[in-house]
Amino acid sequence: MPELRKDPISGRWVIISIERGKRPSDFGMRVSPKKGGFCAFCEGNEHTTPPEISAFRPDGSKPNTPGWTLRVVSNKFPALNTEGQLNREGEGIFDKMNGVGAHEVIIECPNHNLTLSTMPLKSVEDTLWAFHYRITELKKDTRLKYALVFKNEGDDAGASLEHTHSQLIALPIVPHLVQEEIEHARQYYNYKERCIFCDIIHQERASKVRVISEKEDFMVIAPFAPRSPFETLILPKKHGSNFMPNGNFTFLAQILQKTLKQIDKVLDLPPYNMMIHTSPFKNEENDYYHWHIEIIPKLTNIAGFEWGSGFYINPTPPEEAAKFMREVEA
Amino acid sequence: MPELRKDPISGRWVIISIERGKRPSDFGMRVSPKKGGFCAFCEGNEHTTPPEISAFRPDGSKPNTPGWTLRVVSNKFPALNTEGQLNREGEGIFDKMNGVGAHEVIIECPNHNLTLSTMPLKSVEDTLWAFHYRITELKKDTRLKYALVFKNEGDDAGASLEHTHSQLIALPIVPHLVQEEIEHARQYYNYKERCIFCDIIHQERASKVRVISEKEDFMVIAPFAPRSPFETLILPKKHGSNFMPNGNFTFLAQILQKTLKQIDKVLDLPPYNMMIHTSPFKNEENDYYHWHIEIIPKLTNIAGFEWGSGFYINPTPPEEAAKFMREVEA
Repeated sequence: MPELRKDPISGRWVIISIERGKRPSDFGMRVSPKKGGFCAFCEGNEHTTPPEISAFRPDGSKPNTPGWTLRVVSNKFPALNTEGQLNREGEGIFDKMNGVGAHEVIIECPNHNLTLSTMPLKSVEDTLWAFHYRITELKKDTRLKYALVFKNEGDDAGASLEHTHSQLIALPIVPHLVQEEIEHARQYYNYKERCIFCDIIHQERASKVRVISEKEDFMVIAPFAPRSPFETLILPKKHGSNFMPNGNFTFLAQILQKTLKQIDKVLDLPPYNMMIHTSPFKNEENDYYHWHIEIIPKLTNIAGFEWGSGFYINPTPPEEAAKFMREVEA
Repeated sequence: MPELRKDPISGRWVIISIERGKRPSDFGMRVSPKKGGFCAFCEGNEHTTPPEISAFRPDGSKPNTPGWTLRVVSNKFPALNTEGQLNREGEGIFDKMNGVGAHEVIIECPNHNLTLSTMPLKSVEDTLWAFHYRITELKKDTRLKYALVFKNEGDDAGASLEHTHSQLIALPIVPHLVQEEIEHARQYYNYKERCIFCDIIHQERASKVRVISEKEDFMVIAPFAPRSPFETLILPKKHGSNFMPNGNFTFLAQILQKTLKQIDKVLDLPPYNMMIHTSPFKNEENDYYHWHIEIIPKLTNIAGFEWGSGFYINPTPPEEAAKFMREVEA
């Protein structure tokens, strides 16, 4: 019998479809081998990207020249513009505003062939530090309300360039899905006077079946109602509403890289999407929301049912996914 | 300057990214030519599908034999089970229930090589009639609350079988996205005492820029804040909350086929998803919700930004899409 499960944070239901039960080897996707060729993100080609916003240059080299270990640049085809005013206005019944915001690219390391799961741990740590630094800087812009950090790995997951990179889009609106999570978390807090994420960590630790790993400050779980097979959540064990405010990124870099290595091994290098959910700029320190990292391997398609309903059909129960993840060596 | 636009029905914002502006020829997707080979949905292979739930058999032939013009069968790998009780229960902090529901396939015509845009108009009409008939029948099951009719055309849009077909999933829960539309429509109605969809039709007719076509009882528009390039909406001009209750399906079949032919010509046979949104079984006749058909050509990817935010980045303004659609002969 398939099961309907509700994710208490987003409020969405998913169908865990056991009849369609899929093991890791049933998923055909795999990141294509890197083709190489000219790459704007490789060392030596700094002049082909928009100018550097920030970079790590241990050798003290000049901006937009070789010598960096990590670069942050504007997206060459930004979804939003940094200049201008919002000018919120109506068009009859409709609402619109100028697309003001920031769209940045974090080039995680100079080596074209590495990924977040194979690069030196120091590069992962620097990448997390860069996320935090850029969010902190963008917060100063009073037009903006939220910064979403995300990563698309592999063509099928939407990566248009194969050199490993993450992106950050800062928005003048708190995004719909984040707002929904916050509202559900706030309702729970009003009712229970506890953070719902903290309660989930407590329950998952007791039942164990969906725990993938636990190390120092972090817990990795397969969520109870995942949208996609092998959806994975990295949660700080201690309550924190705001992405690493007093950040030492070493432990997070370790657990993130370990988790990605497990995903790579279990699913044979799948394309994936990774997102960081943190609190909006306003009210960033609060008792009800809990920042976290979501990883969604790209194994299934969004089709008519998902477009029309907002339901997801997931052929792999998270208890099974967590077991596969635990059993593989990272 | 890109523009942020809010869809007043779903409440979601989209980014109309003019810098990435795409014309129809910039989209590479195309439904692959049909490969043929054995097909469970072809005439003569009736015994290879689950038993017929319903069929049109103008020659009076027996169920599960050749002679039909349209068949409705259960999905061989159903996402939900027709048998059993819901047994709503908690698992600590989480909620779940048995996956009770129906998952049916509507085989729209016996000819393997036709599609909804190329089949005889009578088959399109029969298909719409079958949707209506199956929804009406499933409504009698008191465990169920909603029926979503949808169609995936082409492998890239999630169709696992190439013989033209639609699907229906009946659910024990009103889906998230439908519930959201209903709530926004109800809020608008409480404030204005008018249906928001009726107001949109009125405004679009006056401004003309997003109107694709208008014929008898229906209007076809590119919505103000589309999730995807060339997203298209078919709306009944006269208020109706419930999918064709006193249905004469001829006009709808005409405008649906015409619209799909336009999409096929403008975008060179793209994969697409089609969904019917109607009222839940309870309260199906009301003044605030307005049934409609949504068509989303599969031209862009859902990636990290969309997964994390619920925002969509659309590189084609709907005003341009509507113009391309109007200018092509169907």
